[in-house]
Amino acid sequence: MPDAEIIAIGSELLTPDKVDTNSLFLTGELNLLGVEVVKKSIVGDDRARLTEAIQDALRAAPLVILTGGLGPTEDDVTRDAVAAAMGREFIFNQAICDGIAERFRSFNRTMAENNKRQAYVVEGAEILPNPRGTAPGQWIEHNGAAVMLLPGPPGEMKPLFTGECVPRLRRTLPPLFIRTRFLRVAGMGESDLDTLIAPVYTQYRNPATTILAAAGEIHIHLRARCATEAEAEAVLDEVESKIAALLGERVYSRGESLEEVVGALLKARGATASVAESCTGGLVAGRITSVAGSSAYFRGGFLTYTDEMKTLLLGVPAGLIREHGAVSECVAVAMAEHAREKTGSDYAVSVTGFAGPEGDPPGLVFIGVAWPGGSKATRMQLFGDRARVRMFAAQMALDLLRRKLLEAEPG
Amino acid sequence: MPDAEIIAIGSELLTPDKVDTNSLFLTGELNLLGVEVVKKSIVGDDRARLTEAIQDALRAAPLVILTGGLGPTEDDVTRDAVAAAMGREFIFNQAICDGIAERFRSFNRTMAENNKRQAYVVEGAEILPNPRGTAPGQWIEHNGAAVMLLPGPPGEMKPLFTGECVPRLRRTLPPLFIRTRFLRVAGMGESDLDTLIAPVYTQYRNPATTILAAAGEIHIHLRARCATEAEAEAVLDEVESKIAALLGERVYSRGESLEEVVGALLKARGATASVAESCTGGLVAGRITSVAGSSAYFRGGFLTYTDEMKTLLLGVPAGLIREHGAVSECVAVAMAEHAREKTGSDYAVSVTGFAGPEGDPPGLVFIGVAWPGGSKATRMQLFGDRARVRMFAAQMALDLLRRKLLEAEPG
Repeated sequence: MPDAEIIAIGSELLTPDKVDTNSLFLTGELNLLGVEVVKKSIVGDDRARLTEAIQDALRAAPLVILTGGLGPTEDDVTRDAVAAAMGREFIFNQAICDGIAERFRSFNRTMAENNKRQAYVVEGAEILPNPRGTAPGQWIEHNGAAVMLLPGPPGEMKPLFTGECVPRLRRTLPPLFIRTRFLRVAGMGESDLDTLIAPVYTQYRNPATTILAAAGEIHIHLRARCATEAEAEAVLDEVESKIAALLGERVYSRGESLEEVVGALLKARGATASVAESCTGGLVAGRITSVAGSSAYFRGGFLTYTDEMKTLLLGVPAGLIREHGAVSECVAVAMAEHAREKTGSDYAVSVTGFAGPEGDPPGLVFIGVAWPGGSKATRMQLFGDRARVRMFAAQMALDLLRRKLLEAEPG
Repeated sequence: MPDAEIIAIGSELLTPDKVDTNSLFLTGELNLLGVEVVKKSIVGDDRARLTEAIQDALRAAPLVILTGGLGPTEDDVTRDAVAAAMGREFIFNQAICDGIAERFRSFNRTMAENNKRQAYVVEGAEILPNPRGTAPGQWIEHNGAAVMLLPGPPGEMKPLFTGECVPRLRRTLPPLFIRTRFLRVAGMGESDLDTLIAPVYTQYRNPATTILAAAGEIHIHLRARCATEAEAEAVLDEVESKIAALLGERVYSRGESLEEVVGALLKARGATASVAESCTGGLVAGRITSVAGSSAYFRGGFLTYTDEMKTLLLGVPAGLIREHGAVSECVAVAMAEHAREKTGSDYAVSVTGFAGPEGDPPGLVFIGVAWPGGSKATRMQLFGDRARVRMFAAQMALDLLRRKLLEAEPG
């Protein structure tokens, strides 16, 4: 597997707030070609330091990718540094210069004198056209290494790398197909999930399995690397089906978000939903309505943050709250039932709990679901700070609504 | 100003998903000492490549900081590479070894044989004690350069750098005090703000002013670098007061979030609030209730996502919606007034609009505010995709509520 080094150029990348994200994209693309990134560097707009860094890289790796420093000003030193590091000359390219001038004309502007700097190429370079910006990329072969000069703005760099560099690299590298699968799982913790599926995935080195805990859910990534596409898809089919069989309906999608899945289930059933939220204060509805077109199935609901509002707005009997407390199974059920009734929706979901730090115990949450045939509430003890408890409670509410919808036949 | 190079070590940092964040912290701390970071590198767990990278750094900068690769396994090559790069020996340190063994005992575990690797120090190194982990840091002076070896986990690296390296660096560097100020501004775009305050801040090179657009608001950072603390504070006082005078009540805080400021204003007035949300679907209430203790001033509200719900739940007359449309000034006013009345709150805020992509025109939003003395609605045309329109609308709703609260005297 050939090695690559990436050098990002720009003094702004050496401040406390800026991260070089171009190299993450490039690493992902290179890995797909079977190329490993062995070193990344970030250098400021400093000709001498950059020349040294390029010389170091040329000694160490057969592929060197440079991003940034191709602009029109004195600060933009990448072209100079590459030429110096290779001991080559610069050549003025009239066609590039004309292209830049034309680009300015198309914006009704005149090209500034310093833009001519961008028309110089390193002796022997292939020009990589950049229709999204003024600076073209360059591809230079030097003592058996390939050096790529790419502009820094991601919107220019990414299509240039994908469109110009990847095909050139592919011609010289052995074929490798990487295919991936992605499962989103709700209602299960990371370690329980791992205990359940490890007996399957540990039997395979290919595909590689990665388990990531995201906000209230788990993502499973499968990644196969094979010499043919068919081989990759076959091994993914095999492992994915075994894992999916173990997880059952806890796998809620292959990509869409939980709120999109809930929306699609409601739509397929021609059903509507509403909410009654206490401790989540609108987070459940906020997620449902983040989906475009959600007005087709979401009617609305109630934010009943205080006991009084649960009675006044929703009609939960004050006696029920007094007797059982606002954070209780029967109040959760009553909230969902009353929301369903008052909005006329087919389904309703409710959340009542102690988000923390107040409440005893903090993290105790009840989620109610009401549907055309009945209602029930689920108790859960969540952990973490206020933001985490609220986020998990909203996630669980959406998941319990999803599971109830799965029981109903599409209409 | 002396220069520093940072090298992060770890093959996981060369994958498409991982960013080296340690170097951001170190850059911030070094800048505070007046040290500039001139290069950052990321190298995998590869002895030969790391040795070369260290040699390159030693040639280029008087301060070299290495993070990671100090663990107990064969993969952890930093100690070896530093010794090789400097042509020095390793020395086994019994005291470190005893410390590691003691640490394991305190967890009722036995030290593994390979943990002894962590007890080797480079010849001539000062040991930097690391009470949070097994691997101590090391400080090595070499041909006029200072090299720091720090563990990779941020929870160990940060206190070790702040507690052990910063005092050592301070002894050799000229005094420099950096002080900052921070203003959060709502209800104004970035370019308008810049036009307004540029005549002030461009007159000062110290403090340096940075303007950043965040989610629906603008952040102004002022940063002064002076030889004494008093000097820094004085120049900040001068510039901050001039900028604040120009911006007036658009400056909503020096740090707290908009929802915290709204909560504090309600509390100070002994007042309560409620919401009626259509296109924001709970985002406004979600932000208000994200503040711990918000049940003291937030009562709840209505999510009226459809026209029917605006009438059914809130009591907005159906004829009003038919005549003016649900996205209109008078419906926004009615929503706020009815929310206030039905919840019995002192204040209410409402949002109705076209979040997009549906609606004509997408981005048209009305925000209603009702207060003890009256009500009004504000029309705005927002731009961007659905998520952005919703986020901006929620931000504007909180800001309009804040401005109304400012008119009322604290009770």
